[in-house]
Amino acid sequence: RPRNIIANPNCTTTQLVMSLKPIEKLSHITKVHVSTYQSASGAGASGMDELKEQYSEIERGEEPTVDKFAYQLAYNLIPQVDTFTENGYTKEEMKMYNETRKIMHSDIKVSATCIRVPVLRAHSESVWVETERPISVEEAKESFNNTPGIVMMDNAENLEYPMPLFLEGKDEVFVGRIRKDLSNEKGLTFWSVSDQIKKGAALNAVQIAEYIVDKEFQK
Amino acid sequence: RPRNIIANPNCTTTQLVMSLKPIEKLSHITKVHVSTYQSASGAGASGMDELKEQYSEIERGEEPTVDKFAYQLAYNLIPQVDTFTENGYTKEEMKMYNETRKIMHSDIKVSATCIRVPVLRAHSESVWVETERPISVEEAKESFNNTPGIVMMDNAENLEYPMPLFLEGKDEVFVGRIRKDLSNEKGLTFWSVSDQIKKGAALNAVQIAEYIVDKEFQK
Repeated sequence: RPRNIIANPNCTTTQLVMSLKPIEKLSHITKVHVSTYQSASGAGASGMDELKEQYSEIERGEEPTVDKFAYQLAYNLIPQVDTFTENGYTKEEMKMYNETRKIMHSDIKVSATCIRVPVLRAHSESVWVETERPISVEEAKESFNNTPGIVMMDNAENLEYPMPLFLEGKDEVFVGRIRKDLSNEKGLTFWSVSDQIKKGAALNAVQIAEYIVDKEFQK
Repeated sequence: RPRNIIANPNCTTTQLVMSLKPIEKLSHITKVHVSTYQSASGAGASGMDELKEQYSEIERGEEPTVDKFAYQLAYNLIPQVDTFTENGYTKEEMKMYNETRKIMHSDIKVSATCIRVPVLRAHSESVWVETERPISVEEAKESFNNTPGIVMMDNAENLEYPMPLFLEGKDEVFVGRIRKDLSNEKGLTFWSVSDQIKKGAALNAVQIAEYIVDKEFQK
């Protein structure tokens, strides 16, 4: 019988699969490369507080306090999120491999590099996908446009693209910089930003609950 | 006759080819994916000043001044470095394609996504390479170790990896997080950091000049 347990996936994976779905609908995705730009809020409110306090301390000429992160995050990048596993990937990076396969019911292979950046809220991801048949930028854009929960911000002429500072508190996953992969005719590349506290965690849990309630009422 | 003009390549490309050379020595690299994390100093000293001033203004409760960059960089990521070209890539990204081929005398194909990050100095790069034959992590590490100008910082147990804050003013290109690409048996992935004012621009010009002087003395 059903165990009635629903797992809420890891925030970076939720954002990734949301952005992969519109492509997968067009052609099966075989491979993904993803570099993350993860904000301080991934470590909770105290992570955000530590980052802000570090800038205040620097402003006052004091030594920045380092507690929540392994190193000073202000003016820095930390190429480690969570602890290391035996193959050299971190647990966070291996979640992006394992959870993406599980959620998409797919043989997709994901190689991820997760980097902590001095941003308060919203994670960003630089993604390359390889599909079974070549997908054009136009096809991809149309599919992103037609997917609920995705907002496309891709207008180079007007300097429109997703940026974490301006997407704090938003529910959707924002996608932009959609291009052909110059090294692979079956490849596409894009950039996504999402407030991982919202879609990545709390909001997603609420959406799962709403989905279940709807299903119950349909019985 | 020789025109005696030597071009100093773009900083992100210099850092990339420095990190590719040790792999190319082992097996020809066919494809590269690279996400950059470029510091404010790429826009000159005034770019660094603007970033610092933005944090001071935030601290004082004032609106941050935006001038050198298209948007506020403090607490933000800007997925645009230089202007856009027709294929959706920026000029900076296309330099990484074209200059890498030129410098390496290679048919290598590079797909780059260049992101400005709120770091003062030193650019970082998340890189995937595909080679003609599979290269092991051990082979790659040995080759990185034996290449002048490269410093390997890759010790997960001691949380040793390259970070831009601690590598300001250094001459070398620092490489870490070296792993197999989980999506491609002929692939490797790694993380590199380099102070682009040094190796990427001024130091590289000096090194080119020294090389020429040495050559002249050998005549």
